[in-house]
Amino acid sequence: MHTQVGIIGAGPAGLMLAHLLHLQGIESIIIESRTRSQIEGTIRAGVLEQGTVDLMNEAGVGERMMREGHFHQGIELRFNGKGHRINIHELTGGKNVTVYAQHEVIKDLVAARLKAGGEIIFNVGDVSLHDLDTSVPKIRFRKDKSGELQEITCDFIAGCDGFHGPSRASIPGSILKEYQKVYPFGWLGILIEAPPSAPELIYANHERGFALLSTRSPEIQRLYIQVDPGDDIASWSDDRIWTELHARLETNDGWKLIEGPIIQKGIIGMRSFVCHPMQYGRLFLAGDAAHIVPPTGAKGLNLAIADVRVLERGLAVFYTSGQTEQLESYSATCLRRVWKAERFSWYMTSMLHRHYDHTAFEHRLQLAELDYVTSSRAASTSLAENYVGLPMEW
Amino acid sequence: MHTQVGIIGAGPAGLMLAHLLHLQGIESIIIESRTRSQIEGTIRAGVLEQGTVDLMNEAGVGERMMREGHFHQGIELRFNGKGHRINIHELTGGKNVTVYAQHEVIKDLVAARLKAGGEIIFNVGDVSLHDLDTSVPKIRFRKDKSGELQEITCDFIAGCDGFHGPSRASIPGSILKEYQKVYPFGWLGILIEAPPSAPELIYANHERGFALLSTRSPEIQRLYIQVDPGDDIASWSDDRIWTELHARLETNDGWKLIEGPIIQKGIIGMRSFVCHPMQYGRLFLAGDAAHIVPPTGAKGLNLAIADVRVLERGLAVFYTSGQTEQLESYSATCLRRVWKAERFSWYMTSMLHRHYDHTAFEHRLQLAELDYVTSSRAASTSLAENYVGLPMEW
Repeated sequence: MHTQVGIIGAGPAGLMLAHLLHLQGIESIIIESRTRSQIEGTIRAGVLEQGTVDLMNEAGVGERMMREGHFHQGIELRFNGKGHRINIHELTGGKNVTVYAQHEVIKDLVAARLKAGGEIIFNVGDVSLHDLDTSVPKIRFRKDKSGELQEITCDFIAGCDGFHGPSRASIPGSILKEYQKVYPFGWLGILIEAPPSAPELIYANHERGFALLSTRSPEIQRLYIQVDPGDDIASWSDDRIWTELHARLETNDGWKLIEGPIIQKGIIGMRSFVCHPMQYGRLFLAGDAAHIVPPTGAKGLNLAIADVRVLERGLAVFYTSGQTEQLESYSATCLRRVWKAERFSWYMTSMLHRHYDHTAFEHRLQLAELDYVTSSRAASTSLAENYVGLPMEW
Repeated sequence: MHTQVGIIGAGPAGLMLAHLLHLQGIESIIIESRTRSQIEGTIRAGVLEQGTVDLMNEAGVGERMMREGHFHQGIELRFNGKGHRINIHELTGGKNVTVYAQHEVIKDLVAARLKAGGEIIFNVGDVSLHDLDTSVPKIRFRKDKSGELQEITCDFIAGCDGFHGPSRASIPGSILKEYQKVYPFGWLGILIEAPPSAPELIYANHERGFALLSTRSPEIQRLYIQVDPGDDIASWSDDRIWTELHARLETNDGWKLIEGPIIQKGIIGMRSFVCHPMQYGRLFLAGDAAHIVPPTGAKGLNLAIADVRVLERGLAVFYTSGQTEQLESYSATCLRRVWKAERFSWYMTSMLHRHYDHTAFEHRLQLAELDYVTSSRAASTSLAENYVGLPMEW
């Protein structure tokens, strides 16, 4: 097999890249280790930056998002038993927080790819990358996990295969630098069958730990509480979860959380991770393959989409003019914005979680940060512009 | 002796309070453990918030400051060999950074007090506070350190006697809560005879550590470098200091530091400290007696002045109407703003110093913060509004 751009991974980065390249007349093949129903069924984050929404629409894949997504004009920060709304719409000159789940984005992109005759090979195994420092890099894999070894020769490879995929691991260790922080926080997340308790997302800083109220649809809500990342989900009964949610989210002025049957629960850890560079020879990393953020800033999916915008532009210039400057600066262009998103994700995480290793001074400083960010227009604007997504820097 | 308000300490807080009370027709006596020449000769910080400048002018003690002070419209942040100006004047709707040394403020306030017949008793010893929870609190002290014990009975006592003074120590330990952070940084400060190297203050974050370029007058400049707080000043030759200043401050575009004879040098440690509450019975703490900030945010003197503005208003209401609500809420009113200034001072300190205990990830995050704050208007505005002083919250 041969294609212009071999794409490893059918997550938001890989699928969006294939779609954008198609719109530029550049062909690609995606290989993916999971099945279609697995990628379309894995429930992940659900907050889209304005730039992501705009790109979905410009690329012609935004129709269902505009119909079924939820458009919020603000978020709420709660602390000391009181809510403080950040009016994101007004502070950013009209941008919105769009709640539309990642697996819905994936469904829309898969449908668009298949409709356009694009090739996505699901359920592959033994993926490996070869000859990255030549002009004919290759991807090898087995169909249906255990079939015969196949090879795709390409002009370029896009490594969109997540944190644990083989792409980053194919960059020589002497070149790759990795930056990482593991947080001492876990998020216990639940999905419940209930109407929304509030019209917008609520981020609560409470003595008992962080809590987040989010929504998936008019019938399904998503809630999180900070727990120890080593906790066993079996030790969290529904009752214990509800006790914490009520205690952490409810305010002094009578706002009440609406309960409902818990249909899914699990605990995830939290880390920040960035690798330098995001490219090697003809390989370009995008999304979680290159960087991870804790979910507090709602940046993961959006960073992946921003990466492939930069990559698509570089590839389009190359195929139009043969010029490689844009591709050569791919990593530097992405990383400047990535680090700002890492900064924001760290900031939101630090500000909102209970740090059991903090001194009394540091705890007071955290409350002062919350007081300041909710009382200063400049500081609220800074939070808002990061939440809806900083401008692309290119 | 009897007075309405007994003031312990002739620093900026005590002197400004006495002056403001005088303008309200309220009498006070200041006692001070140092001599007049000592307080007028101790060289300290020199950056005044806009609110401090406005108050000096409104209170009729700003004439020399307006003539001899330096009014800067911005500050510069330097990192990665490049300067980034924060246009404070424009970002704050016309406010300025005023460079006018603390001992000059003190000279102006001492002159105003003495001219108005106010009493300042210098060089006292053995200061103690008594009967704070009664309506006739008392201050005892010895004139000229070792004279006979004297007593001032008052309606109220203002403890403006700094971090090591006896006022805070007079609040029962069962009531007082103290919050503290000691930073692993020292500042080696020098005074030099030279013209200014730059028109505005320069804060530099460099691999070798923080450096600050400041000015005192057209002939005298103030420079600082981050050192280990345990360093002996004897191990810092002039040559070694200049080597660090050149390396840390100079940019890639040819800007050069102007050298001159070093006429003073010393090393100071850095801490953050806040006590709760700032009042007990008829005692009110103001300035360094209640809180300390690291010098990076230039907030120390300005917080002291803000405290006495709140206290003066409470005392004026009391003597006019007998109402005590304002006095009762003195501590809460001050502390909300104090914690925001602590937050800003911590933020500037964290962003600008080299943290030898940081991971590579945390170091990158610091550079991302600098990149963000100098490239986002909202973030620059947030820095600027804090630098010129947040609004009074009353």
